[in-house]
Amino acid sequence: MTFDFDKKQILSKKDKSSIQGIDPGIKKLVNLINSHKDYYTTSSCAGRIQLILQGKKKCDSEWLLKSHKMVLLKDVKKALKQYAQGELWFRQEAMILHVCCRTVEAANLILNFARQQGFKRSGIMAMNRRTIVEILSQEKVDTIIGLDGKIVVDDNYLELLIRIANSKLKSNIKKIKNLEKSLISF
Amino acid sequence: MTFDFDKKQILSKKDKSSIQGIDPGIKKLVNLINSHKDYYTTSSCAGRIQLILQGKKKCDSEWLLKSHKMVLLKDVKKALKQYAQGELWFRQEAMILHVCCRTVEAANLILNFARQQGFKRSGIMAMNRRTIVEILSQEKVDTIIGLDGKIVVDDNYLELLIRIANSKLKSNIKKIKNLEKSLISF
Repeated sequence: MTFDFDKKQILSKKDKSSIQGIDPGIKKLVNLINSHKDYYTTSSCAGRIQLILQGKKKCDSEWLLKSHKMVLLKDVKKALKQYAQGELWFRQEAMILHVCCRTVEAANLILNFARQQGFKRSGIMAMNRRTIVEILSQEKVDTIIGLDGKIVVDDNYLELLIRIANSKLKSNIKKIKNLEKSLISF
Repeated sequence: MTFDFDKKQILSKKDKSSIQGIDPGIKKLVNLINSHKDYYTTSSCAGRIQLILQGKKKCDSEWLLKSHKMVLLKDVKKALKQYAQGELWFRQEAMILHVCCRTVEAANLILNFARQQGFKRSGIMAMNRRTIVEILSQEKVDTIIGLDGKIVVDDNYLELLIRIANSKLKSNIKKIKNLEKSLISF
């Protein structure tokens, strides 16, 4: 009964993520999956828009902005006031969800649902003898906007990046809702 | 003997990729892996820089430039002359390598080598009952540079994107070489 033991352990653990809890945009989907006896989620992010001060290593990076909702130019401009040095990146990331599955058959089942709803890059991963389905979306933006303390893009371009990132975030949320609906009876 | 049969089949098949063959930057690594009795590669890309005319679906997309080597501003400017409409994206992608492994133990072995050489996002995937290790690097740039037939970035910004993409491609090649070295005696 290792699966049931692990599920209980994982779901009772305190959330260690920076936002201390599950993103509202993905909470319903996560709860739905966790209510099924053959699955539990091990990590989730609904997608986000970030301004990242890139360090040499990931642990050296700093976030000037991290949002799981759409952002406005004024939010970004406000965050940019803190920027003084280094490489600054505008990054929009799509949903990522890890689902631990009781069996390979269970993994294939949820994987098929995910692929049908447009999460094309999803796959099954083996991790520490557990079978994990990684459900991934592709929508992304990833570009430099500041170098050595100087913003290298103009407001028009920044607005375009924001518009595209917001629209990708929106279509991502729609896909999450569709996956949620398709899983209601599974 | 399914593994050996599959290995023979796959390695004798004609390459269907757009460049008709293995990228020179990753060929030595691919040959090294394929020379080991417990492994064979199923797909590989050493990393690339692209100008993509984004379609609604991936199959509708067109490439104005696709390079596995570093690019110059003049190469990009030349490719941009073909741009007349739609959304144009500048994208730099890192190495991706799929290695089919005889056993889970063999998969874990090569996975450890890859992670030690900085391919942090690598993992084991189950695909059609085969055990595949996906070796991935993270270096990337992904941003819009043209909208409705109009280039939306200036030459300075384009040069910066190219400089960063080239440098990421270069550090990616270095990581490939290091992985190659570390696998020589495996």
